[in-house]
Amino acid sequence: MAINHAECIEACNRCAAYCDFCAASCLQEENTKMMAECIRLDMQCAAICRLAAQYMAQGSEFAAQLCSLCAEVCQACGEECGKHDHDHCRQCADACMDCVRECRKMAA
Amino acid sequence: MAINHAECIEACNRCAAYCDFCAASCLQEENTKMMAECIRLDMQCAAICRLAAQYMAQGSEFAAQLCSLCAEVCQACGEECGKHDHDHCRQCADACMDCVRECRKMAA
Amino acid sequence: MAINHAECIEACNRCAAYCDFCAASCLQEENTKMMAECIRLDMQCAAICRLAAQYMAQGSEFAAQLCSLCAEVCQACGEECGKHDHDHCRQCADACMDCVRECRKMAA
Amino acid sequence: MAINHAECIEACNRCAAYCDFCAASCLQEENTKMMAECIRLDMQCAAICRLAAQYMAQGSEFAAQLCSLCAEVCQACGEECGKHDHDHCRQCADACMDCVRECRKMAA
Repeated sequence: MAINHAECIEACNRCAAYCDFCAASCLQEENTKMMAECIRLDMQCAAICRLAAQYMAQGSEFAAQLCSLCAEVCQACGEECGKHDHDHCRQCADACMDCVRECRKMAA
Repeated sequence: MAINHAECIEACNRCAAYCDFCAASCLQEENTKMMAECIRLDMQCAAICRLAAQYMAQGSEFAAQLCSLCAEVCQACGEECGKHDHDHCRQCADACMDCVRECRKMAA
Repeated sequence: MAINHAECIEACNRCAAYCDFCAASCLQEENTKMMAECIRLDMQCAAICRLAAQYMAQGSEFAAQLCSLCAEVCQACGEECGKHDHDHCRQCADACMDCVRECRKMAA
Repeated sequence: MAINHAECIEACNRCAAYCDFCAASCLQEENTKMMAECIRLDMQCAAICRLAAQYMAQGSEFAAQLCSLCAEVCQACGEECGKHDHDHCRQCADACMDCVRECRKMAA
Protein backbone atom coordinates (compact mmCIF):
# COMPACT_ATOMS: atom_id res chain seq x y z
CA MET A 1 0.00 0.00 0.00
CA ALA A 2 1.36 3.42 -0.98
CA ILE A 3 -0.65 5.01 1.81
CA ASN A 4 0.96 6.60 4.89
CA HIS A 5 0.77 4.65 8.16
CA ALA A 6 -0.01 1.47 6.20
CA GLU A 7 1.10 -0.78 9.05
CA CYS A 8 -1.06 1.00 11.59
CA ILE A 9 -4.04 0.94 9.23
CA GLU A 10 -3.56 -2.79 8.81
CA ALA A 11 -3.26 -3.34 12.57
CA CYS A 12 -6.49 -1.36 13.09
CA ASN A 13 -8.38 -3.34 10.44
CA ARG A 14 -7.09 -6.62 11.82
CA CYS A 15 -8.03 -5.61 15.35
CA ALA A 16 -11.52 -4.58 14.23
CA ALA A 17 -12.08 -7.93 12.52
CA TYR A 18 -10.90 -9.92 15.54
CA CYS A 19 -13.07 -7.80 17.86
CA ASP A 20 -16.16 -8.34 15.70
CA PHE A 21 -15.41 -12.06 15.53
CA CYS A 22 -14.72 -12.27 19.26
CA ALA A 23 -17.97 -10.46 20.14
CA ALA A 24 -20.02 -12.77 17.92
CA SER A 25 -18.20 -15.83 19.30
CA CYS A 26 -18.60 -14.74 22.93
CA LEU A 27 -22.35 -14.53 22.36
CA GLN A 28 -22.33 -18.23 21.42
CA GLU A 29 -20.39 -19.37 24.51
CA GLU A 30 -22.17 -21.21 27.29
CA ASN A 31 -21.36 -18.62 29.92
CA THR A 32 -22.33 -15.41 28.16
CA LYS A 33 -22.54 -13.52 31.45
CA MET A 34 -18.83 -14.01 32.06
CA MET A 35 -18.12 -12.61 28.59
CA ALA A 36 -20.30 -9.50 28.93
CA GLU A 37 -17.40 -7.12 29.55
CA CYS A 38 -15.46 -8.67 26.68
CA ILE A 39 -18.37 -8.19 24.25
CA ARG A 40 -18.92 -4.64 25.42
CA LEU A 41 -15.31 -3.64 24.84
CA ASP A 42 -15.09 -5.58 21.55
CA MET A 43 -17.92 -3.46 20.14
CA GLN A 44 -16.26 -0.21 21.14
CA CYS A 45 -12.82 -1.32 20.01
CA ALA A 46 -13.90 -2.47 16.55
CA ALA A 47 -15.67 0.83 15.91
CA ILE A 48 -12.83 3.17 16.90
CA CYS A 49 -10.28 1.02 15.02
CA ARG A 50 -12.33 1.48 11.84
CA LEU A 51 -12.47 5.25 12.33
CA ALA A 52 -8.74 5.39 13.04
CA ALA A 53 -8.06 3.49 9.79
CA GLN A 54 -10.27 5.96 7.92
CA TYR A 55 -8.58 9.03 9.43
CA MET A 56 -5.11 7.71 8.62
CA ALA A 57 -6.02 6.79 5.04
CA GLN A 58 -7.53 10.25 4.57
CA GLY A 59 -4.41 11.88 5.99
CA SER A 60 -6.45 13.63 8.68
CA GLU A 61 -4.73 16.18 10.93
CA PHE A 62 -6.68 14.55 13.77
CA ALA A 63 -5.39 11.03 13.09
CA ALA A 64 -2.70 11.12 15.78
CA GLN A 65 -5.16 12.24 18.48
CA LEU A 66 -7.64 9.58 17.43
CA CYS A 67 -4.95 6.88 17.37
CA SER A 68 -3.96 7.88 20.86
CA LEU A 69 -7.51 7.32 22.11
CA CYS A 70 -7.78 4.19 19.99
CA ALA A 71 -4.73 2.79 21.78
CA GLU A 72 -6.49 3.29 25.13
CA VAL A 73 -9.62 1.46 23.99
CA CYS A 74 -7.54 -1.37 22.45
CA GLN A 75 -5.56 -1.65 25.69
CA ALA A 76 -8.75 -2.01 27.76
CA CYS A 77 -10.20 -4.51 25.30
CA GLY A 78 -6.97 -6.53 25.03
CA GLU A 79 -6.64 -6.75 28.82
CA GLU A 80 -10.21 -8.01 29.16
CA CYS A 81 -9.83 -10.53 26.33
CA GLY A 82 -6.56 -11.69 27.88
CA LYS A 83 -8.49 -12.91 30.94
CA HIS A 84 -10.30 -15.59 28.94
CA ASP A 85 -9.09 -18.88 27.48
CA HIS A 86 -11.24 -19.05 24.36
CA ASP A 87 -9.26 -19.03 21.12
CA HIS A 88 -11.22 -16.04 19.84
CA CYS A 89 -10.36 -14.11 23.00
CA ARG A 90 -6.66 -14.93 22.81
CA GLN A 91 -6.44 -14.02 19.12
CA CYS A 92 -8.36 -10.84 19.82
CA ALA A 93 -6.09 -9.94 22.74
CA ASP A 94 -3.05 -10.34 20.46
CA ALA A 95 -4.61 -8.21 17.73
CA CYS A 96 -5.54 -5.55 20.31
CA MET A 97 -2.05 -5.37 21.81
CA ASP A 98 -0.51 -5.21 18.35
CA CYS A 99 -2.85 -2.32 17.57
CA VAL A 100 -1.92 -0.57 20.82
CA ARG A 101 1.74 -0.62 19.75
CA GLU A 102 1.06 0.62 16.22
CA CYS A 103 -1.34 3.34 17.36
CA ARG A 104 1.10 4.57 20.02
CA LYS A 105 3.90 4.65 17.47
CA MET A 106 1.67 6.56 15.08
CA ALA A 107 0.50 9.03 17.74
CA ALA A 108 4.01 9.72 19.03
CA MET B 1 -33.81 19.66 8.16
CA ALA B 2 -33.60 20.72 4.50
CA ILE B 3 -32.22 17.31 3.59
CA ASN B 4 -34.15 14.75 1.55
CA HIS B 5 -35.60 11.76 3.41
CA ALA B 6 -35.25 13.64 6.69
CA GLU B 7 -37.82 11.48 8.45
CA CYS B 8 -36.15 8.26 7.39
CA ILE B 9 -32.74 9.60 8.43
CA GLU B 10 -34.17 10.46 11.82
CA ALA B 11 -35.79 7.03 12.18
CA CYS B 12 -32.45 5.39 11.31
CA ASN B 13 -30.52 7.50 13.83
CA ARG B 14 -33.12 6.87 16.52
CA CYS B 15 -33.07 3.15 15.80
CA ALA B 16 -29.26 3.06 15.93
CA ALA B 17 -29.22 4.80 19.31
CA TYR B 18 -31.85 2.46 20.80
CA CYS B 19 -30.01 -0.58 19.43
CA ASP B 20 -26.69 0.59 20.94
CA PHE B 21 -28.43 1.30 24.23
CA CYS B 22 -30.30 -2.02 24.17
CA ALA B 23 -27.11 -4.00 23.45
CA ALA B 24 -25.27 -2.31 26.33
CA SER B 25 -28.26 -2.81 28.65
CA CYS B 26 -28.72 -6.47 27.68
CA LEU B 27 -25.10 -7.07 28.67
CA GLN B 28 -25.94 -5.87 32.17
CA GLU B 29 -29.00 -8.10 32.60
CA GLU B 30 -28.83 -11.14 34.87
CA ASN B 31 -29.61 -13.60 32.11
CA THR B 32 -27.19 -12.49 29.40
CA LYS B 33 -27.47 -15.86 27.65
CA MET B 34 -31.15 -15.28 26.92
CA MET B 35 -30.28 -11.88 25.42
CA ALA B 36 -27.48 -13.13 23.14
CA GLU B 37 -29.55 -13.04 19.96
CA CYS B 38 -30.86 -9.59 20.87
CA ILE B 39 -27.35 -8.21 21.37
CA ARG B 40 -26.15 -9.80 18.15
CA LEU B 41 -28.90 -8.22 16.07
CA ASP B 42 -28.65 -4.87 17.89
CA MET B 43 -25.02 -4.57 16.79
CA GLN B 44 -25.83 -5.29 13.18
CA CYS B 45 -28.92 -3.10 13.16
CA ALA B 46 -27.20 -0.04 14.64
CA ALA B 47 -24.42 -0.25 12.08
CA ILE B 48 -26.58 -0.52 8.96
CA CYS B 49 -28.93 2.21 10.22
CA ARG B 50 -25.94 4.56 10.47
CA LEU B 51 -24.82 3.75 6.95
CA ALA B 52 -28.36 4.19 5.62
CA ALA B 53 -28.53 7.63 7.26
CA GLN B 54 -25.20 8.52 5.64
CA TYR B 55 -26.26 7.36 2.16
CA MET B 56 -29.53 9.29 2.35
CA ALA B 57 -27.87 12.49 3.55
CA GLN B 58 -25.31 12.18 0.75
CA GLY B 59 -28.07 11.64 -1.80
CA SER B 60 -26.55 8.32 -2.86
CA GLU B 61 -28.05 6.49 -5.86
CA PHE B 62 -27.67 3.33 -3.74
CA ALA B 63 -29.68 4.68 -0.79
CA ALA B 64 -32.93 2.93 -1.76
CA GLN B 65 -31.23 -0.47 -2.09
CA LEU B 66 -29.46 0.00 1.23
CA CYS B 67 -32.68 1.10 2.95
CA SER B 68 -34.39 -2.00 1.62
CA LEU B 69 -31.74 -4.22 3.26
CA CYS B 70 -31.77 -2.02 6.35
CA ALA B 71 -35.51 -2.67 6.69
CA GLU B 72 -34.82 -6.42 6.71
CA VAL B 73 -32.21 -6.12 9.45
CA CYS B 74 -34.45 -3.81 11.51
CA GLN B 75 -37.33 -6.26 11.11
CA ALA B 76 -35.23 -9.16 12.41
CA CYS B 77 -33.92 -7.04 15.28
CA GLY B 78 -37.34 -5.64 16.18
CA GLU B 79 -38.89 -9.12 16.24
CA GLU B 80 -36.17 -10.42 18.54
CA CYS B 81 -36.38 -7.40 20.87
CA GLY B 82 -40.17 -7.79 20.91
CA LYS B 83 -39.77 -11.17 22.64
CA HIS B 84 -38.32 -9.58 25.78
CA ASP B 85 -39.94 -7.55 28.54
CA HIS B 86 -37.07 -5.23 29.43
CA ASP B 87 -37.84 -1.56 28.84
CA HIS B 88 -34.78 -1.18 26.63
CA CYS B 89 -35.95 -4.10 24.48
CA ARG B 90 -39.46 -2.72 24.11
CA GLN B 91 -38.23 0.76 23.22
CA CYS B 92 -35.76 -0.75 20.80
CA ALA B 93 -38.45 -2.91 19.18
CA ASP B 94 -40.59 0.20 18.65
CA ALA B 95 -37.68 2.14 17.16
CA CYS B 96 -36.85 -0.80 14.87
CA MET B 97 -40.40 -1.19 13.58
CA ASP B 98 -40.65 2.54 13.00
CA CYS B 99 -37.43 2.35 11.02
CA VAL B 100 -38.75 -0.62 9.01
CA ARG B 101 -41.71 1.50 7.93
CA GLU B 102 -39.62 4.55 7.02
CA CYS B 103 -37.00 2.51 5.17
CA ARG B 104 -39.66 0.61 3.18
CA LYS B 105 -41.35 3.88 2.26
CA MET B 106 -38.00 5.32 1.20
CA ALA B 107 -37.05 2.22 -0.82
CA ALA B 108 -40.41 2.01 -2.60
CA MET C 1 -35.27 9.23 24.46
CA ALA C 2 -34.54 7.52 27.78
CA ILE C 3 -30.89 7.34 26.87
CA ASN C 4 -28.19 9.36 28.64
CA HIS C 5 -26.75 12.35 26.78
CA ALA C 6 -29.76 12.34 24.45
CA GLU C 7 -29.24 15.97 23.44
CA CYS C 8 -25.61 15.44 22.59
CA ILE C 9 -26.44 12.29 20.62
CA GLU C 10 -29.03 14.25 18.67
CA ALA C 11 -26.58 17.08 18.02
CA CYS C 12 -24.02 14.57 16.76
CA ASN C 13 -26.51 12.86 14.45
CA ARG C 14 -27.75 16.20 13.14
CA CYS C 15 -24.20 17.38 12.56
CA ALA C 16 -23.31 14.15 10.74
CA ALA C 17 -26.31 14.50 8.43
CA TYR C 18 -25.53 18.14 7.61
CA CYS C 19 -21.87 17.29 6.98
CA ASP C 20 -22.79 14.45 4.61
CA PHE C 21 -25.26 16.71 2.84
CA CYS C 22 -22.78 19.59 2.69
CA ALA C 23 -20.02 17.38 1.25
CA ALA C 24 -22.33 16.03 -1.46
CA SER C 25 -23.62 19.54 -2.23
CA CYS C 26 -20.12 21.06 -2.37
CA LEU C 27 -19.20 18.46 -4.99
CA GLN C 28 -22.00 19.82 -7.19
CA GLU C 29 -20.95 23.47 -6.88
CA GLU C 30 -19.29 25.20 -9.82
CA ASN C 31 -16.12 25.98 -7.93
CA THR C 32 -15.34 22.61 -6.36
CA LYS C 33 -11.69 23.62 -5.81
CA MET C 34 -12.72 26.35 -3.40
CA MET C 35 -14.80 23.81 -1.47
CA ALA C 36 -12.06 21.16 -1.17
CA GLU C 37 -11.21 21.93 2.44
CA CYS C 38 -14.90 22.01 3.35
CA ILE C 39 -15.51 18.58 1.78
CA ARG C 40 -12.43 17.14 3.46
CA LEU C 41 -13.51 18.27 6.92
CA ASP C 42 -17.16 17.33 6.33
CA MET C 43 -16.10 13.72 5.74
CA GLN C 44 -14.05 13.58 8.92
CA CYS C 45 -16.67 15.38 10.99
CA ALA C 46 -19.58 13.17 9.93
CA ALA C 47 -17.62 10.04 10.79
CA ILE C 48 -16.50 11.05 14.28
CA CYS C 49 -19.97 12.41 15.11
CA ARG C 50 -21.44 8.99 14.31
CA LEU C 51 -18.90 7.23 16.52
CA ALA C 52 -19.51 9.72 19.35
CA ALA C 53 -23.27 9.03 19.12
CA GLN C 54 -22.56 5.30 19.29
CA TYR C 55 -20.25 5.59 22.30
CA MET C 56 -22.75 7.72 24.21
CA ALA C 57 -25.69 5.42 23.46
CA GLN C 58 -23.59 2.44 24.58
CA GLY C 59 -22.61 4.25 27.78
CA SER C 60 -18.92 3.90 26.96
CA GLU C 61 -16.36 4.96 29.56
CA PHE C 62 -14.47 6.53 26.63
CA ALA C 63 -17.39 8.67 25.47
CA ALA C 64 -16.19 11.85 27.18
CA GLN C 65 -12.71 11.61 25.63
CA LEU C 66 -14.18 10.93 22.21
CA CYS C 67 -16.64 13.83 22.54
CA SER C 68 -13.75 16.08 23.44
CA LEU C 69 -11.94 15.18 20.20
CA CYS C 70 -15.24 15.31 18.30
CA ALA C 71 -15.67 18.91 19.47
CA GLU C 72 -12.28 19.79 17.97
CA VAL C 73 -13.14 18.26 14.61
CA CYS C 74 -16.58 19.93 14.59
CA GLN C 75 -14.95 23.26 15.45
CA ALA C 76 -12.52 22.98 12.52
CA CYS C 77 -15.33 21.91 10.18
CA GLY C 78 -17.73 24.60 11.38
CA GLU C 79 -15.10 27.32 10.93
CA GLU C 80 -14.37 26.21 7.38
CA CYS C 81 -18.07 25.92 6.47
CA GLY C 82 -18.61 29.37 7.98
CA LYS C 83 -16.36 30.89 5.30
CA HIS C 84 -18.79 29.99 2.52
CA ASP C 85 -22.16 31.47 1.55
CA HIS C 86 -23.91 28.36 0.26
CA ASP C 87 -27.00 27.41 2.24
CA HIS C 88 -25.64 23.92 2.85
CA CYS C 89 -22.42 25.40 4.28
CA ARG C 90 -24.25 27.79 6.58
CA GLN C 91 -26.60 25.10 7.86
CA CYS C 92 -23.64 22.78 8.34
CA ALA C 93 -21.68 25.45 10.20
CA ASP C 94 -24.64 25.92 12.57
CA ALA C 95 -24.98 22.19 13.16
CA CYS C 96 -21.23 21.90 13.77
CA MET C 97 -21.14 24.73 16.31
CA ASP C 98 -24.17 23.31 18.07
CA CYS C 99 -22.37 19.97 18.25
CA VAL C 100 -19.22 21.64 19.60
CA ARG C 101 -21.26 23.06 22.50
CA GLU C 102 -23.02 19.77 23.26
CA CYS C 103 -19.83 17.72 23.03
CA ARG C 104 -17.90 20.13 25.28
CA LYS C 105 -20.72 20.04 27.83
CA MET C 106 -20.72 16.25 27.69
CA ALA C 107 -16.94 16.00 27.98
CA ALA C 108 -16.74 18.43 30.91
CA MET D 1 -6.91 -15.02 10.16
CA ALA D 2 -9.13 -17.80 11.48
CA ILE D 3 -12.20 -15.80 10.52
CA ASN D 4 -14.57 -16.85 7.73
CA HIS D 5 -14.37 -14.91 4.47
CA ALA D 6 -10.94 -13.61 5.45
CA GLU D 7 -9.98 -12.80 1.86
CA CYS D 8 -13.14 -10.84 1.24
CA ILE D 9 -12.74 -8.95 4.52
CA GLU D 10 -9.20 -8.06 3.50
CA ALA D 11 -10.33 -6.95 0.04
CA CYS D 12 -13.01 -4.75 1.65
CA ASN D 13 -10.55 -3.17 4.09
CA ARG D 14 -8.02 -2.58 1.33
CA CYS D 15 -10.67 -1.06 -0.90
CA ALA D 16 -11.88 1.22 1.91
CA ALA D 17 -8.34 2.47 2.56
CA TYR D 18 -7.68 3.18 -1.14
CA CYS D 19 -11.03 4.94 -1.47
CA ASP D 20 -10.32 7.16 1.56
CA PHE D 21 -6.84 7.90 0.21
CA CYS D 22 -8.16 8.55 -3.30
CA ALA D 23 -10.86 10.94 -2.05
CA ALA D 24 -8.36 12.91 0.00
CA SER D 25 -5.88 12.96 -2.90
CA CYS D 26 -8.53 14.03 -5.45
CA LEU D 27 -9.32 17.01 -3.23
CA GLN D 28 -5.70 18.14 -3.60
CA GLU D 29 -5.63 17.87 -7.41
CA GLU D 30 -5.69 21.00 -9.54
CA ASN D 31 -8.91 20.10 -11.30
CA THR D 32 -11.12 19.14 -8.38
CA LYS D 33 -14.26 19.64 -10.48
CA MET D 34 -13.28 16.80 -12.79
CA MET D 35 -12.77 14.56 -9.75
CA ALA D 36 -16.13 15.34 -8.09
CA GLU D 37 -17.80 12.09 -9.16
CA CYS D 38 -14.74 10.11 -8.09
CA ILE D 39 -14.74 11.70 -4.61
CA ARG D 40 -18.48 11.16 -4.24
CA LEU D 41 -18.25 7.46 -5.02
CA ASP D 42 -15.05 6.99 -2.97
CA MET D 43 -16.92 8.19 0.13
CA GLN D 44 -19.80 5.79 -0.43
CA CYS D 45 -17.55 2.89 -1.36
CA ALA D 46 -15.27 3.18 1.68
CA ALA D 47 -18.26 3.24 4.03
CA ILE D 48 -20.07 0.19 2.67
CA CYS D 49 -16.79 -1.78 2.45
CA ARG D 50 -16.26 -1.17 6.16
CA LEU D 51 -19.76 -2.36 7.01
CA ALA D 52 -19.35 -5.43 4.80
CA ALA D 53 -16.11 -6.30 6.62
CA GLN D 54 -17.93 -5.92 9.94
CA TYR D 55 -20.87 -8.11 8.90
CA MET D 56 -18.57 -10.86 7.63
CA ALA D 57 -16.40 -10.84 10.76
CA GLN D 58 -19.54 -11.01 12.90
CA GLY D 59 -20.88 -13.91 10.82
CA SER D 60 -24.05 -12.00 10.02
CA GLU D 61 -26.84 -13.78 8.16
CA PHE D 62 -27.15 -10.55 6.12
CA ALA D 63 -23.50 -10.52 5.03
CA ALA D 64 -24.15 -12.04 1.59
CA GLN D 65 -26.86 -9.51 0.76
CA LEU D 66 -24.67 -6.65 1.92
CA CYS D 67 -21.68 -7.95 -0.06
CA SER D 68 -23.88 -8.11 -3.12
CA LEU D 69 -24.76 -4.41 -2.78
CA CYS D 70 -21.16 -3.63 -1.84
CA ALA D 71 -20.04 -5.17 -5.15
CA GLU D 72 -22.36 -2.79 -7.02
CA VAL D 73 -20.99 0.27 -5.24
CA CYS D 74 -17.38 -0.90 -5.75
CA GLN D 75 -18.11 -1.50 -9.45
CA ALA D 76 -19.45 2.04 -9.89
CA CYS D 77 -16.52 3.50 -7.96
CA GLY D 78 -13.93 1.41 -9.79
CA GLU D 79 -15.33 2.39 -13.18
CA GLU D 80 -15.21 6.08 -12.29
CA CYS D 81 -11.67 5.85 -10.86
CA GLY D 82 -10.62 3.96 -13.98
CA LYS D 83 -11.35 7.05 -16.09
CA HIS D 84 -8.55 9.03 -14.43
CA ASP D 85 -4.77 8.81 -14.75
CA HIS D 86 -3.74 9.78 -11.23
CA ASP D 87 -1.87 7.03 -9.40
CA HIS D 88 -4.33 7.15 -6.51
CA CYS D 89 -7.23 6.66 -8.94
CA ARG D 90 -5.58 3.71 -10.69
CA GLN D 91 -4.69 2.02 -7.40
CA CYS D 92 -8.20 2.65 -6.15
CA ALA D 93 -9.75 1.25 -9.33
CA ASP D 94 -7.70 -1.93 -8.89
CA ALA D 95 -8.69 -2.27 -5.23
CA CYS D 96 -12.35 -1.70 -6.15
CA MET D 97 -12.37 -4.32 -8.91
CA ASP D 98 -10.63 -6.79 -6.63
CA CYS D 99 -13.32 -6.14 -4.03
CA VAL D 100 -16.07 -6.60 -6.63
CA ARG D 101 -14.72 -10.08 -7.38
CA GLU D 102 -14.38 -11.07 -3.71
CA CYS D 103 -17.80 -9.70 -2.76
CA ARG D 104 -19.50 -11.45 -5.68
CA LYS D 105 -17.79 -14.72 -4.76
CA MET D 106 -18.90 -14.29 -1.15
CA ALA D 107 -22.48 -13.39 -2.11
CA ALA D 108 -22.84 -16.31 -4.54
